[in-house]
Amino acid sequence: MSEKPNSWFGYMGQVLRIDLTHHKWTAEPLKKELVENFIGGRGFGAKILWSELLAGVDPLSPENKLVISVGPLTGTKVQSASRWVAQFKSPLTGIYCRSVGGGYFGAELKFAGYDVIIVEGRAEKPVYVWIDNDKVEFRDATKVWAMNTLAARDFLLEETEKRAKAIMIGPAGEKLVKIAAIVTDDSRTAARGGPGAVMGSKNLKAIVVRGSKKPVIYNEEALGEAVKEQIEAYRKWPYFEEFRKLGTNHAVYLWYTFGHFPPYNFQQRELEGIDRFRPEVLASYVVKHKGCYGCMIQCGKVFKVTKGPYAGIAWEFPELETHWSFGGVLGNCNIESIIAANMLCDLYGLDTISTGVAIAFATELYEKGIIGKSETDGLELKWGDPEVIIELVRRIAFRVGNLGNLLAEGVKRAAEVIGRGAEKYAMHIKGLEMPAYDPRAMKGQGLGLATGTIGGSHAISWNKFEILGVPKKVDPFIVEGKAELAKYVQDEMAACETAVFCKLTVNHEMTSPNLYSKVLYAATGIEKFKDERYLWLVGERIWNLERAFDVREGIDNRHDTVPERLLKEPMPRDPAKGQIFELGKLLKDYYRVRGWNERGSPLREKLVELGLVEVAGELEREVFQT
Amino acid sequence: MSEKPNSWFGYMGQVLRIDLTHHKWTAEPLKKELVENFIGGRGFGAKILWSELLAGVDPLSPENKLVISVGPLTGTKVQSASRWVAQFKSPLTGIYCRSVGGGYFGAELKFAGYDVIIVEGRAEKPVYVWIDNDKVEFRDATKVWAMNTLAARDFLLEETEKRAKAIMIGPAGEKLVKIAAIVTDDSRTAARGGPGAVMGSKNLKAIVVRGSKKPVIYNEEALGEAVKEQIEAYRKWPYFEEFRKLGTNHAVYLWYTFGHFPPYNFQQRELEGIDRFRPEVLASYVVKHKGCYGCMIQCGKVFKVTKGPYAGIAWEFPELETHWSFGGVLGNCNIESIIAANMLCDLYGLDTISTGVAIAFATELYEKGIIGKSETDGLELKWGDPEVIIELVRRIAFRVGNLGNLLAEGVKRAAEVIGRGAEKYAMHIKGLEMPAYDPRAMKGQGLGLATGTIGGSHAISWNKFEILGVPKKVDPFIVEGKAELAKYVQDEMAACETAVFCKLTVNHEMTSPNLYSKVLYAATGIEKFKDERYLWLVGERIWNLERAFDVREGIDNRHDTVPERLLKEPMPRDPAKGQIFELGKLLKDYYRVRGWNERGSPLREKLVELGLVEVAGELEREVFQT
Repeated sequence: MSEKPNSWFGYMGQVLRIDLTHHKWTAEPLKKELVENFIGGRGFGAKILWSELLAGVDPLSPENKLVISVGPLTGTKVQSASRWVAQFKSPLTGIYCRSVGGGYFGAELKFAGYDVIIVEGRAEKPVYVWIDNDKVEFRDATKVWAMNTLAARDFLLEETEKRAKAIMIGPAGEKLVKIAAIVTDDSRTAARGGPGAVMGSKNLKAIVVRGSKKPVIYNEEALGEAVKEQIEAYRKWPYFEEFRKLGTNHAVYLWYTFGHFPPYNFQQRELEGIDRFRPEVLASYVVKHKGCYGCMIQCGKVFKVTKGPYAGIAWEFPELETHWSFGGVLGNCNIESIIAANMLCDLYGLDTISTGVAIAFATELYEKGIIGKSETDGLELKWGDPEVIIELVRRIAFRVGNLGNLLAEGVKRAAEVIGRGAEKYAMHIKGLEMPAYDPRAMKGQGLGLATGTIGGSHAISWNKFEILGVPKKVDPFIVEGKAELAKYVQDEMAACETAVFCKLTVNHEMTSPNLYSKVLYAATGIEKFKDERYLWLVGERIWNLERAFDVREGIDNRHDTVPERLLKEPMPRDPAKGQIFELGKLLKDYYRVRGWNERGSPLREKLVELGLVEVAGELEREVFQT
Repeated sequence: MSEKPNSWFGYMGQVLRIDLTHHKWTAEPLKKELVENFIGGRGFGAKILWSELLAGVDPLSPENKLVISVGPLTGTKVQSASRWVAQFKSPLTGIYCRSVGGGYFGAELKFAGYDVIIVEGRAEKPVYVWIDNDKVEFRDATKVWAMNTLAARDFLLEETEKRAKAIMIGPAGEKLVKIAAIVTDDSRTAARGGPGAVMGSKNLKAIVVRGSKKPVIYNEEALGEAVKEQIEAYRKWPYFEEFRKLGTNHAVYLWYTFGHFPPYNFQQRELEGIDRFRPEVLASYVVKHKGCYGCMIQCGKVFKVTKGPYAGIAWEFPELETHWSFGGVLGNCNIESIIAANMLCDLYGLDTISTGVAIAFATELYEKGIIGKSETDGLELKWGDPEVIIELVRRIAFRVGNLGNLLAEGVKRAAEVIGRGAEKYAMHIKGLEMPAYDPRAMKGQGLGLATGTIGGSHAISWNKFEILGVPKKVDPFIVEGKAELAKYVQDEMAACETAVFCKLTVNHEMTSPNLYSKVLYAATGIEKFKDERYLWLVGERIWNLERAFDVREGIDNRHDTVPERLLKEPMPRDPAKGQIFELGKLLKDYYRVRGWNERGSPLREKLVELGLVEVAGELEREVFQT
């Protein structure tokens, strides 16, 4: 068997480097060292960005790079492992960002023979890139420029190949809206941190891919056995059927009862109309199940709207986070409008979380009298007004008016511009708008958010201990031991996103580094991957490299925090009533557990242990000595 | 060659009868007599409706029938001959209706082996019919019910076959809106007269077809020669390039200068902003050309919207009539909003002409003080207000509010309900909202509209003499000789819509009964069709049969008229300034030329001459003796 090529060193696994400035491209096989040290997906992107970006680069300049990658299991029969990841220096946060998307694009990219696309430079005029297996073309995108993603999709697939898959931006990305998403042909998004604006800044409307190769598998039989085991684990998972039925929607109401789904921009007054988010109500809207390539869960739910101004729509999603960002956080329980806002975000290419939180921010400012109609272009902002929400989605996407243009910068920058204490109501961490979790209600989850390498992201630090009680149940309110748990879930997710496994399965008992090492070794035949502990090491390596990137950009312990409100205002409702978020103790523990110094920089010993000695050297040169 | 089966008597050319009440279907070969007497398409539908419907049947009852048909050239290489026609008793007008659609559905139906579908009865619950060649299935349409046509299309094609073609209704048809259209998967419509409501009344959401047979051709070589000749005629047509570039959009401004495109609900004040409809302006929106199966013109233009509230859209159409119905007739020169309104009509399944004219009707009533805000649900109606126009499209489609619900009935019924002289401003003929032609500016065209068998339709009586000066130029203002011209174009169009040829090519020098007879004989080998004069006879036969249907429903000379305004108010602008429409003289001539009595009933001699002796008998029994 040792003679057989594996997927990394055979015809698959190329790195496609696209130079938009000169309309040139090169394809090179993946390097063995990169594969062994970083496995794939998120690992590759972290490494490439660390190595190829200069500190301080303007995220919207030609010098920023956008890395799109898949992993060693993409396009295989391994379940839930065919997502794709976009990595870049974020125009929203100014630090490292990783944003993951689903659908069928990842598998198609793999079938075309690529594990990584590195997009560099900036095209003079709008272009899209058409990748037809080994052939790469730069094509004029003048026609599709300014089109929403659905219209653009129809054009792009007609101009290339009906069965091709695509990632693209909508008007928001073109207009450099800093919360702009990348959207697939099947309306999945890599949304967080403004990857759409990075594409927009490069005049890149879309990447369209068609592939007809199959990934080479090292040991088909062993892979088959391991996948059988994986499928069994899926079936045994207690929430499997609920998840298939409703996806993350089954958890919306439950989350609220946990103290999450924080209403009214985290003011956490009880949400009138929360019953509208009960699973049975949400289920009544669902008419179809959809999913990503190679995933038996099909967590994507298509919602049908039959009444109100948006009647006639059927759209895949919302899911939990968007029910909050256009629902709970805005005090809006009109499900129809949430579906419509979700659809508009997908059409215009916007991050639903950041967009909703930005509107909530403006609404609270208006409520508090910090801004008035002169700053809102005449709009009267109030909680739970579907019409204004929908209108603001459009204004943000197109940067219409004073308020639309301001919120398009994200809440951190908007608060800076507004001044007058607005920052207090800007619910972000390191510039990334917060998701539907309240750190006061779960301390480990809060710590994960505070220390996230991309800012306030639920996806890379999801605390399954506190939320689901797996692998063991812990008290959400205690502080002790939470640093270890935060590190655990962060490293685990970083490891599993090399696949690229879906976070929804990693954060439960379905997929784990143990299962991952089995399928990974079977797929690649690389000895190192046989040992689960090595995957944990790679996870920690990635996390530290991401942190090093951030440190290089000026991030330190002062940025590892959460909005003031969560530190000072006791939680007003059960079950976390009276709780605040004890940042100091948590962070101190966390740095210790991480092997970082008190400023939050990885220590040399830790970096050496992780095989990142050159990172230690650079950090010392660039940061410690200034 | 006589041994060779032709397309009529071989495996093709079946009549598919669908009984929705009992979920049963039958397929029978076309009868030779039907083919020889009525050729196909519009001929078949007229004959079937005459023979199978009882006089006085409620158009929205299970007893009404919907006939969908194609013709003997559909799916062949003959140009512009693959449209499909829907025929039914109209819920809008209460009389006969024929409504023609384009796209790829017609050819697909032919490839499945059918020339005619007769839809009967009424399903208990929403269904759609899935025709996969010889297999016909009744399927549950609960999921797609209430969806707009774009969302429904995605569902239907995913549930059946990606490459299938479909006709369907949107929410408007489901809600029995009397101006509801049938919409294809490629957003073409058969819109006039409310066929969408007929489908809705039968609980039929869609018909989805997949076919893999090829039409049998009697003489391939002769057909090839004739098609070559046809293509040459196309290329020689003086407007060919303009038409390919802009479709009917190239004529919008020109029509206005002719005295058509009547602004402000036919008040015909000069339209401020008419320059927005100049060809070069409209061309600046166009990003793609699309067309029907087997047509080299590709008159469908995709418009892109880059600014305003509808930015991001790309949509096929508007064309001339819709630029008027959401533009000129409403005093609206905001092209972006016209595109958006067109899109909404296609999504909701509405006739753009009737919808726009209904809004214009309401706007004039509001202007005149006949209705106020209490009747408009608070809307302030004024000329050229895009926001109100868009809002009313939605309200009509969903029957929202007093005004939406009223306009959903069409202007004739709405005027009856409103009273107070509202009828004066209801621009319809026999209940069908008028198109963008002013009878005062072209008398032959006006006579055609006044006597149309389906009501105020530009499509079946398009007077190329007056409009284009072909086959010979005539003065548009004179009355003499216009009855002959009206009959000529009416009979010609009826003949050519048996193919089903596109009206845009018939009404010019590209397609004619002469060309038709050549391709028709080559395709079918039926001797009778060799003689062009026979096709003219069939055209007249169809027209008289349609008229007989209308007479049986109570239509007589009193209904052959145009709105009072056009008879009494002199035209206020050039070039027809001062003109009125001289109905009396025109109609008297017309009945004489037609061989009808002074009440507008076909005389026995005429019917006998046309081979419709049984029609004469029935008319005498049912009408003359009551």
